[in-house]
Amino acid sequence: MTLHLNAFLMSTGHHEASWRLAESNPVANTDIEHYRELARIAERGKLDSIFFADSPVLWNDVGRRPSGSLEPTVLLTAIAAATTHIGLIATASTTYNDPYNLARRFASVDHVSGGRAGWNVVTTAGPEAAKNFNLADQPAHAERYDRAAEFLDVARKLWDSWADNATLADKAEGVWGDNAKVQPIDHVGRHFQVRGPLNVPRSPQGHPLIVQAGSSEDGKGLAARYAEAVFTAQQTLADAQEFYADLKRRTAAVGRDPAGLKILPGIVPVIGVTEAEALRLERELDELIKPEYARAQLAKTLRVKPEDLPLDRPLPADLPDEDEIEGAKSRYTLIVTLARRENLTVRQLIGRLGGGRGHRTFSGTPEQVADAIQEWYDAGAADGFNIMPAVLPSGLSAFVDHVVPILQRRGLFRTSYEGTTLRDHYGLPRPAGRTTALEEASA
Amino acid sequence: MTLHLNAFLMSTGHHEASWRLAESNPVANTDIEHYRELARIAERGKLDSIFFADSPVLWNDVGRRPSGSLEPTVLLTAIAAATTHIGLIATASTTYNDPYNLARRFASVDHVSGGRAGWNVVTTAGPEAAKNFNLADQPAHAERYDRAAEFLDVARKLWDSWADNATLADKAEGVWGDNAKVQPIDHVGRHFQVRGPLNVPRSPQGHPLIVQAGSSEDGKGLAARYAEAVFTAQQTLADAQEFYADLKRRTAAVGRDPAGLKILPGIVPVIGVTEAEALRLERELDELIKPEYARAQLAKTLRVKPEDLPLDRPLPADLPDEDEIEGAKSRYTLIVTLARRENLTVRQLIGRLGGGRGHRTFSGTPEQVADAIQEWYDAGAADGFNIMPAVLPSGLSAFVDHVVPILQRRGLFRTSYEGTTLRDHYGLPRPAGRTTALEEASA
Repeated sequence: MTLHLNAFLMSTGHHEASWRLAESNPVANTDIEHYRELARIAERGKLDSIFFADSPVLWNDVGRRPSGSLEPTVLLTAIAAATTHIGLIATASTTYNDPYNLARRFASVDHVSGGRAGWNVVTTAGPEAAKNFNLADQPAHAERYDRAAEFLDVARKLWDSWADNATLADKAEGVWGDNAKVQPIDHVGRHFQVRGPLNVPRSPQGHPLIVQAGSSEDGKGLAARYAEAVFTAQQTLADAQEFYADLKRRTAAVGRDPAGLKILPGIVPVIGVTEAEALRLERELDELIKPEYARAQLAKTLRVKPEDLPLDRPLPADLPDEDEIEGAKSRYTLIVTLARRENLTVRQLIGRLGGGRGHRTFSGTPEQVADAIQEWYDAGAADGFNIMPAVLPSGLSAFVDHVVPILQRRGLFRTSYEGTTLRDHYGLPRPAGRTTALEEASA
Repeated sequence: MTLHLNAFLMSTGHHEASWRLAESNPVANTDIEHYRELARIAERGKLDSIFFADSPVLWNDVGRRPSGSLEPTVLLTAIAAATTHIGLIATASTTYNDPYNLARRFASVDHVSGGRAGWNVVTTAGPEAAKNFNLADQPAHAERYDRAAEFLDVARKLWDSWADNATLADKAEGVWGDNAKVQPIDHVGRHFQVRGPLNVPRSPQGHPLIVQAGSSEDGKGLAARYAEAVFTAQQTLADAQEFYADLKRRTAAVGRDPAGLKILPGIVPVIGVTEAEALRLERELDELIKPEYARAQLAKTLRVKPEDLPLDRPLPADLPDEDEIEGAKSRYTLIVTLARRENLTVRQLIGRLGGGRGHRTFSGTPEQVADAIQEWYDAGAADGFNIMPAVLPSGLSAFVDHVVPILQRRGLFRTSYEGTTLRDHYGLPRPAGRTTALEEASA
């Protein structure tokens, strides 16, 4: 058993000021060659996968940082052609998609990439996205998660609506497919009525890897039932250990093998040849943050007015409870907990979030980064890590060329790909299809 | 002015029995390398574009022919990476998509392909697709077209929600984008309420080329208002001339330049070195058709039972009127008219439809095919042609290597690409964006 590494990519990097560095291409957000280069670097490092976050709405003030992005299934398909092994994980919303179209699109990406597709299932927080889809406000948190669970049920039925052996291609008899092995799903539920079958044959992985990233109660419940990998934000070893143990327990409690769900906390490493160099880069980045942008964003997340957040004071005492939040509950709680625990001023909090949006952020040498990874892995806090370079591409190259070799020497990470699919890299089995189950029953 | 050529691609070819030929790869429908090869052949021939039909439902009996297909925006993105000039036209439904997601996806394909994306706008006929999207039956024909028009209005507003010069990328001042040039659209209509702006910057072509293919009254009305290219099925020169003149007239009547809409009838050429060789291939293909599959399909289209269509009798006299059809009106009318005009038996009709589904089908030498193209082009029946090879890849290679050079020698077709975008190939201007219009107004 070795650990798993995913590269979470975002235009010029996760640090909000990364685009202002001299080395950065500020229009990388729509430059497909930039992303192909990143994918090739990740593949050179034998990483399991790359990943893009997404939401069907324009976030933020466009003055602040590179805004607008390529739709992830399109982006990852364009990247697939330039790579051979790296897994490709796209985010898509269950609140603002139809299961038939989305199941078909992910199956298609799995076909064209030779079995490298993954889907990060999100329910999309915030009223802004709702307004792009005929709604005045977002559905309630619990309602979004209820829909997500049924959406996944429908998608899995559709992916299994073709048996693996449904295609006969019998030229002599003139029979292309076996109708008995391509069946409607006739799903009727609270949110969806879907007849099926899907209009694409079963894909190389059976279905894409299911990834989940919300850490609210509803999010953990969904992950336990459906997820095969979880991306999570944890600040301390104790929190990470507790989250890990809790989610594995929940997974076992619904009758699944806990080893079938891989947990990857996010880390935002700023890497230097010496510790001083790493700290210099971190300071340079933090000095490039313009606090007024970040304060407006923080105010939106906390449901207060920007002027209620003086930069050099702590967060106000009278913030809403997590229970009142219908948006991104786990992000809200993480931010408030971080600020209260470390007694941060708004300005300090902005610096911490600007660097990594609440993930575990630190600066150091390759050896120190490798130690930080190993510490959590050995302590039962992670099956792997979601690497979020502060600056791209340089932060990813630094990780791949300097940290990965240390992990390999320690026997913690693969030195070559052993399989070709995303499931192979994560050590997860290909889901049995419908006919296999039928055939087993009759055997 | 020279003519335009689009290659309409479909797994092993448009002839329903093409997959049974010894030369065919019967699982080409999910083989991305097959499609990349086709695209490279089309690009070698300097064709304007390639195109895929689509519907969010599994058509037909899977026994009959290769069934299920890759989602077209994914497929064309995967093809984009293997080509440099050929235009990439994907079909997507306005009845079973949301405008925000679809506008964003097409803009993304346009970005990653360097301005080569086109969208064939369809309203998706038939109750079967509706049942994959929470509905018991399809919305009425007129209602689908009403939604399509509003869908296109929303999509165009979203594509223009970012001005071309919205990105400042001012590292020194720390201002990435100009908020004044990225604006909500605040659309409120009968079918959609969409706030915007889009979450991706304006794409190389401004927006994808808009293609339309229905020839019903509603379809022609939609084309006149929005389409930049029209694919159509016309059997006779007289019909094609009438359709061409009528649609150009309608386009002018809504205040558009008729030259801004290109009309491309479909042709299904079966090409041989000699006429005898072409006829031999056509006969071989027709003998491989199994009539029971085709009869079931025909019965569905005509809204009768298969047993009401004896193979060696003409169509029954008492078929429904076009007005009663809520599905694909123009296809229905085309089939009935063809059968009545040529007094075909059901078996003969199946042969004609199996070869090309109602398009202009003929077999001949490269010279004869070039003559057939030139005849319609010179007679004001077409701005170009939608080439539908009966067998793939061989039928496309034959066209590119033997027919295209004849058209080039006659001065009817380009010998090299003059531009890089799909709009360049079709000789269509890049749509002015929002700010250009504002700037013109203030100038």
